[in-house]
Amino acid sequence: MVITVIGLGLIGGSLAIDLKNRDFASKVIGVDNNRNHAGTALKRGIVDELASLEDGVDKGDLIIVATPADAALGILPGILDRCGNKVVTDMCSTKGNIATLVSGHSNRKQYVASHPMAGTEYSGPKAAFSGLFDNKTAIICDRGLSGAKAIKVVTQMYKALNMKIINMPGTEHDVHAAYVSHISHISSFVLSLTVLEKEKNEKKIFELAGGGFESTVRLAKSSADMWVPIFQQNRDNIMVVLKAYIDKLNDFEHLIASGKNDELYMLINEANKIKKILK
Amino acid sequence: MVITVIGLGLIGGSLAIDLKNRDFASKVIGVDNNRNHAGTALKRGIVDELASLEDGVDKGDLIIVATPADAALGILPGILDRCGNKVVTDMCSTKGNIATLVSGHSNRKQYVASHPMAGTEYSGPKAAFSGLFDNKTAIICDRGLSGAKAIKVVTQMYKALNMKIINMPGTEHDVHAAYVSHISHISSFVLSLTVLEKEKNEKKIFELAGGGFESTVRLAKSSADMWVPIFQQNRDNIMVVLKAYIDKLNDFEHLIASGKNDELYMLINEANKIKKILK
Repeated sequence: MVITVIGLGLIGGSLAIDLKNRDFASKVIGVDNNRNHAGTALKRGIVDELASLEDGVDKGDLIIVATPADAALGILPGILDRCGNKVVTDMCSTKGNIATLVSGHSNRKQYVASHPMAGTEYSGPKAAFSGLFDNKTAIICDRGLSGAKAIKVVTQMYKALNMKIINMPGTEHDVHAAYVSHISHISSFVLSLTVLEKEKNEKKIFELAGGGFESTVRLAKSSADMWVPIFQQNRDNIMVVLKAYIDKLNDFEHLIASGKNDELYMLINEANKIKKILK
Repeated sequence: MVITVIGLGLIGGSLAIDLKNRDFASKVIGVDNNRNHAGTALKRGIVDELASLEDGVDKGDLIIVATPADAALGILPGILDRCGNKVVTDMCSTKGNIATLVSGHSNRKQYVASHPMAGTEYSGPKAAFSGLFDNKTAIICDRGLSGAKAIKVVTQMYKALNMKIINMPGTEHDVHAAYVSHISHISSFVLSLTVLEKEKNEKKIFELAGGGFESTVRLAKSSADMWVPIFQQNRDNIMVVLKAYIDKLNDFEHLIASGKNDELYMLINEANKIKKILK
């Protein structure tokens, strides 16, 4: 099968590598409007050839949109316009707006809304690597709106990537993603900003940075190109989570300030229950 | 040299293992008022024998206090009362209050205030392991208040643990620790609480939890026994950092809510600068 990957960053690049390696794809056509990224992907052998968006859609059997969410919204209708009986999927971290956008399209059945839950804080084709998706979870959203062939092809693709597949309505996906992914990124970005601001005056501050800080602030390296569109596409859900998060921070602050140690103990013991989920 | 380790948790246990392995300690005497912890440490061979606090102080050449910060405050004056010309050090994550507490003690010169910047989210002697401290940084505080022999012994100890030593006033240490360690723990505890609360109603939420969430929430597994005393001992500094963190979260929320994407881009690009420090 010839696959066309649109957006040759961490996600698009990593899946191109493994879909080719594992013989799911006989050929990988790459599309990227960033010339540097396109050139790097070709040079690294991540893609077999480069094409324009239109040529890429015409030449591929499976079209995979792996751009940031705003670009995906911009190009998906046009891809569906010309996809015929090819299969189209996307990798975006937000699903609600895209679902609305394509809901009335005559080729809706050719499209599978999906989201592989994998990534790192790095971006671009240089960050792409084999194995990124292994043993992670992929979500297929609004399964009933896709045709049987499209579901079959996308399922085979995720199996080739060694992913576990779960199904979920797009709106539910977005709520969950706000809780277990989007808020984590905001808390990291803000932690980084808080500490960097202090560093302006006290250069030695990072001499004390240990593994704990590094782990908590890791996601603050993530790219604005990817995250600003996610924050906008999933704004309503993120507002709810962010409010809950800030409320709890204020509670925590109050307990420390007023020396309410017993309540602080209880709260931390409650937070410790995350162990049961993350081992 | 005979060393006495008071508090046989992750820190005390791990340093006992390596100080013995690496021939810095000829014998390790363990003190812990938690019988389970004491028994585990003896059984695992982390300590050679157990003793009461008083006997432990009397039998050791170097007394290492590796208890939570509140317990350290409680026992340190008594240890200094009977330490004679032995050397005493502590491993606490807060230094200001301890410095004040022992400042007038006649044996102050026998004591070295220090803090090895190492740890994991696990606690207790079962969590102890060889290599925890390798290539990390240890801080010695208020060096001028310790005697030459005491500084020499503690320096040799940290060298045996393969640590880089830096010097810093205790008050400065506490400010820096609030920024690069204590706030990270609060942000993780609160992230855990926010997501766990949502989970009460939506059991499937963790199906979407990927590596990003796991990394950001990791510290929420840390023990209340260790962290409540730290939050209390370093309250004033933590209040300042927490206020800055909440202010920036509110800014971030405002930019998302009002769709100010250009400013959001700038803020994330600013947060990305953490790369220059953490590679």
